[in-house]
Amino acid sequence: MDYSKFFSADVPSFLRSPVREIFRKVDLGSICSFAGGYPSESSFPVAEIERLAGKVLEKYGTRALQYGATQGVPELREVIARRYGVPVSQVQITTSSQQGIDVSTRILADPGDIVLSEPPTYLGALQSFRAYRTRVMSPGDYTPAAGKAKFLYVIPDFNNPTGRTLSLPEREALVEKARGLDVLIVEDSPYREVRYAGTPLPSIRSLAPERTLHLGSFSKIFAPGFRLGWIIGPEALLEQIYVCKQSLDLCPPVFDQYMAAEFMGSGALDANLSKTVAEYRQRRDRMLSLLRQHMPEGVRWTEPEGGLFLWLTLPEAVDTVEMYDEALARGVAYVAGSFFYPDGSHRNTMRLNYTYIAEEKMAPGVALLAEIIRSRL
Amino acid sequence: MDYSKFFSADVPSFLRSPVREIFRKVDLGSICSFAGGYPSESSFPVAEIERLAGKVLEKYGTRALQYGATQGVPELREVIARRYGVPVSQVQITTSSQQGIDVSTRILADPGDIVLSEPPTYLGALQSFRAYRTRVMSPGDYTPAAGKAKFLYVIPDFNNPTGRTLSLPEREALVEKARGLDVLIVEDSPYREVRYAGTPLPSIRSLAPERTLHLGSFSKIFAPGFRLGWIIGPEALLEQIYVCKQSLDLCPPVFDQYMAAEFMGSGALDANLSKTVAEYRQRRDRMLSLLRQHMPEGVRWTEPEGGLFLWLTLPEAVDTVEMYDEALARGVAYVAGSFFYPDGSHRNTMRLNYTYIAEEKMAPGVALLAEIIRSRL
Repeated sequence: MDYSKFFSADVPSFLRSPVREIFRKVDLGSICSFAGGYPSESSFPVAEIERLAGKVLEKYGTRALQYGATQGVPELREVIARRYGVPVSQVQITTSSQQGIDVSTRILADPGDIVLSEPPTYLGALQSFRAYRTRVMSPGDYTPAAGKAKFLYVIPDFNNPTGRTLSLPEREALVEKARGLDVLIVEDSPYREVRYAGTPLPSIRSLAPERTLHLGSFSKIFAPGFRLGWIIGPEALLEQIYVCKQSLDLCPPVFDQYMAAEFMGSGALDANLSKTVAEYRQRRDRMLSLLRQHMPEGVRWTEPEGGLFLWLTLPEAVDTVEMYDEALARGVAYVAGSFFYPDGSHRNTMRLNYTYIAEEKMAPGVALLAEIIRSRL
Repeated sequence: MDYSKFFSADVPSFLRSPVREIFRKVDLGSICSFAGGYPSESSFPVAEIERLAGKVLEKYGTRALQYGATQGVPELREVIARRYGVPVSQVQITTSSQQGIDVSTRILADPGDIVLSEPPTYLGALQSFRAYRTRVMSPGDYTPAAGKAKFLYVIPDFNNPTGRTLSLPEREALVEKARGLDVLIVEDSPYREVRYAGTPLPSIRSLAPERTLHLGSFSKIFAPGFRLGWIIGPEALLEQIYVCKQSLDLCPPVFDQYMAAEFMGSGALDANLSKTVAEYRQRRDRMLSLLRQHMPEGVRWTEPEGGLFLWLTLPEAVDTVEMYDEALARGVAYVAGSFFYPDGSHRNTMRLNYTYIAEEKMAPGVALLAEIIRSRL
């Protein structure tokens, strides 16, 4: 039976994640993988989570197992509101921050609209933008003649994929740009609290609260196996997200929300986060030193102050898409940088994650990668 | 700031759930509520769930807390595949069966398309259909001249809202209709296993596997606080759902999935379900006897063999939408039947849920409702 005739007009635009495709085919445990955007498993406080599960069921009983409010359970909204200094009415819980990106795009953009985003940018965001048949354009290139733009998407802290952080003047310029064009801002902020060097800078939301949807995530500060994120934003925008979310999945996972509320509210999150941040700092330092040790001349990389990724720029001659099969066959995985460019350019770049790989695989992994790159020069 | 100029063309079509609006305003604990589609809290095996949480963390460790595959974790897909006699490749886990409806609509329908569904039907489905700007039409009224139809949506077992079950000839006729029109079928089946009288009938999927997406749910057989459902269907359809789901939320809640896999796989689900089914049977019998005792002449109702709802049809003179504020003020809640009709007709009907209300509130609730109805005759 040919099913293609049944598909909606969106389907041909769906973008398959090459990252998720890798996971489908390869047992990451068997190789040196710098590919996934995964937190370190040592950052998951298993014993604490087991204790929490008992506490949640004791404290909330069947309420933790029943349907919950579409906006999220009050206990979690309150803990987030307190932590970030906003009224509860400006907090919507989402079933992952990926859902935050998706539902924001859904309520704002129509097919043919332009989403403003400086490449390279998060692949999951590009997937949502593409799935709604929008076009992605760099804010610097945009003029209204190119089409209608409703929002600007940005990851200001420790960008996925580059690990770069916008400076304060860059943040101010971005806000000014958004105000000048009269577009909203979707500030994707899953890594903000995972900072291990430098000084925190004001969030975009704090600079332009009236036009920003700020997306937070529990995946990097608690555990991604609980699919939870949040949106902080103007109530008039959250109201439409709330109504849309009814049709998406009725409500976020309720048990997961009570787990997160207890974890964040009790201070356990902060204690665990400072341990995780210390570990990630060490991992980054180790990674940078391995890159310096092994990489051939002409290879450059970012030095992130937080987050999960760094970004390698190789000499123009090296094509990381083309090189990928060899790398995988020889036992090392990365994500080709061109996947983070809407136009598929920058084929001489790659994203490396250094938080997930087993410590003992970092050195052989970098050495192997360097060897493969060198052989192509 | 006026945000309306930023909204996508879908937004004006969003349908707000009157059911969820009731929950926003009223503390259901303080009244006699027949409104929500909630399972009985006594159906949640709290102690067993606490034990399971420990077991899941012991058995799967950090794997239960990490990102998971977009299709769902293999352990849960396998348990479902075994239970329903299908290959694992035909099972996609969803973040709630509401997501199953939403993503099916997303990959199949375009604005202006027609969804075939016999009213009255599930409000959450109508919300998804509306949010994608489709029109809903009864299969009996449809001719291709009316527009393009891609699928037929049906809840064959214990329909929400009516509690009605399609007979075998009705199922066969529906499949024949779908084949004749060459449309797919979305079989929404959250209540199928919650049968407390009569004999199970073949699922629509078993009659037309090649054109059916069968949606299952853990909400009525485990706990809705874990947001989990599944889709069984042809691989070519699931493949597009898989790609779409990457952009929706990356993967279903992982910890929740392992909980469900252990609950279903260990036999605990079946033991708990048979207790729940016995309780629901008693509740239905009690409800039917209370209706017979209290309702004035001219009021009719369905006698469901399973599920969570029954359906009241009142004399034409009574308007349940208009009557609603009085009922709520006097302490009884229901859902007006017209909300389940795309055209808002049948204002003399209502849906009553009898699984959630506290046992001791059933009799006073029905008596009060009967009194209010009688006063309007």
